[in-house]
Amino acid sequence: MILLLGGTGYIGQAFASELHARHLEHRSLSRHELDYTRFDVLLGVLRSARPQFVLNAAGYTGKPNVDACELDPGGTLAGNLLLPQTIAQACEVAGIPWGHVSSGCIYSGAKLPGPDGVHAVKDLTQPAARSIVDTRPETVQGYTETDLPNFCFPDPPCSFYSGTKAMAESAIAGLGSSYIWRLRIPFDEFDSPRNYLSKIQNYPRVYENVNSLSHRRDFVRACLDLWALRAPFGIYNVTNPGWVTTRQVAELIQARLKPRREFAYWASDAEFYRLAAKTPRSNCVLDVSKLLATGVVLRPVLEALDESLQHWQPAHPWSVTEP
Amino acid sequence: MILLLGGTGYIGQAFASELHARHLEHRSLSRHELDYTRFDVLLGVLRSARPQFVLNAAGYTGKPNVDACELDPGGTLAGNLLLPQTIAQACEVAGIPWGHVSSGCIYSGAKLPGPDGVHAVKDLTQPAARSIVDTRPETVQGYTETDLPNFCFPDPPCSFYSGTKAMAESAIAGLGSSYIWRLRIPFDEFDSPRNYLSKIQNYPRVYENVNSLSHRRDFVRACLDLWALRAPFGIYNVTNPGWVTTRQVAELIQARLKPRREFAYWASDAEFYRLAAKTPRSNCVLDVSKLLATGVVLRPVLEALDESLQHWQPAHPWSVTEP
Repeated sequence: MILLLGGTGYIGQAFASELHARHLEHRSLSRHELDYTRFDVLLGVLRSARPQFVLNAAGYTGKPNVDACELDPGGTLAGNLLLPQTIAQACEVAGIPWGHVSSGCIYSGAKLPGPDGVHAVKDLTQPAARSIVDTRPETVQGYTETDLPNFCFPDPPCSFYSGTKAMAESAIAGLGSSYIWRLRIPFDEFDSPRNYLSKIQNYPRVYENVNSLSHRRDFVRACLDLWALRAPFGIYNVTNPGWVTTRQVAELIQARLKPRREFAYWASDAEFYRLAAKTPRSNCVLDVSKLLATGVVLRPVLEALDESLQHWQPAHPWSVTEP
Repeated sequence: MILLLGGTGYIGQAFASELHARHLEHRSLSRHELDYTRFDVLLGVLRSARPQFVLNAAGYTGKPNVDACELDPGGTLAGNLLLPQTIAQACEVAGIPWGHVSSGCIYSGAKLPGPDGVHAVKDLTQPAARSIVDTRPETVQGYTETDLPNFCFPDPPCSFYSGTKAMAESAIAGLGSSYIWRLRIPFDEFDSPRNYLSKIQNYPRVYENVNSLSHRRDFVRACLDLWALRAPFGIYNVTNPGWVTTRQVAELIQARLKPRREFAYWASDAEFYRLAAKTPRSNCVLDVSKLLATGVVLRPVLEALDESLQHWQPAHPWSVTEP
């Protein structure tokens, strides 16, 4: 039996349906049913139910966006830092392997060619960096799992959200047997306030940057594949191979969905942060060589985006999410 | 054997010497020797050494003051939130009782008489509150252990330091057998950057407010007495009974030490925060009835202050601490 924590959330739901599709026996624990954030309660469940594997899809992402985490440090810390540490310590004591949904939003930028070789560039909106992205896209390299996070408390600036996610990785690492799966900006064909394709359609203006993304179902499949393949425990970037600019995504939406609106862009980074956002946003490219080397198959990001838009399922109108 | 964590810190040193004075066998674990912030390492020690009791005097207070915690959220969270949770969970698994040095700086103000009975007043520098403090000091009541913290993440504003200390109490509470000892603004006769009596002498101006304080040796003695008396586990305010205004303390210093300088005061709260401090400070009165009811004896705060100044031991000059 697989124990699923946070199974009612955006990513948790996808895990639940994929486990179902794979006919893998699982139990989704809700906090209303049993407060698994309490160490003694969780350890009790692990000892009595003896799951083969624990999946943590719980976390605090902030609604409508990451700015909300700045206003609720207590909730953010409880969900993103204390809970992962509690699960890690309970699983260690019970001797049960587990997987944690982390975030790739603990990096900024990408690795670009420079006069002295490849080096990390945190801000890809700067003209010099942007010119490399536009004219020599094949030279843009993502961060690997051995690169230290560079959008986190020890390497500021960062958002409070990203700081807690990066810190949780350190709190978990080296304790027991765990996968740390880094998700980045999920999307799929189901219109939702958490779906990147929905967000872009609903932003009053679009923030132009460069990102690796995770198709939601592809992500949970890859995570479960790692466990099924008995790949070594540790950190994995789990994004669809490649990266896209926001403009590319907007153009795909335009081409496939033919919305009435034209996409407008913020004139600059400075304008975006002055008018639309409070805390810094992570925009980054991740390298997924480590994941692919295990034998897990993931389609390129543009293919996943295009397929999602081809099967786009608009939801009932929902309120506009802020960027 | 008693295991002491953080035994080299300002409060930890006082615990070590009091344990020594009481001929209580103890082992002070330093992080250089063994990284007890790692759950598996700590649990290993608890299982092999089987201490009767664990004392956690480790924590991140910020140097030279609490403003430093705002600039180092990672260090603050590691020391004040993740570490206490780790100790609580390891002690729960090993079945070992323990005590945690928490802080009373998770409250603001005091409880004052009003038209509809006694109510919490967060800011005692406001004229109406100040008038009660000055003219009817006997009506000022401290916060008890059943009062919810009101200078913390769920009840802002607060400093990041105070937010993490309050949150650690919740993370610990209800797990295993533990004392939570709330210290407030330590002082004694030994001149030190952490000693309130030293700080007041070195501040360029003094911030006028109302506070309960903890004499450092009285504090550690009371903590160890609670354990020796087998008082019920739980939260205890551990301050010397009563409260003082900053002005009273300054006048005591003037009378006993006859320093060359005259004390200058910030003209207002607003001026203090504009010029001298970044993050809000906790100023509060705590009630120690629960502690005294256990049979632990603690002298009144003015007596402890006066005795410290009578035996004042100036240190070699050290750099001025900011408020």
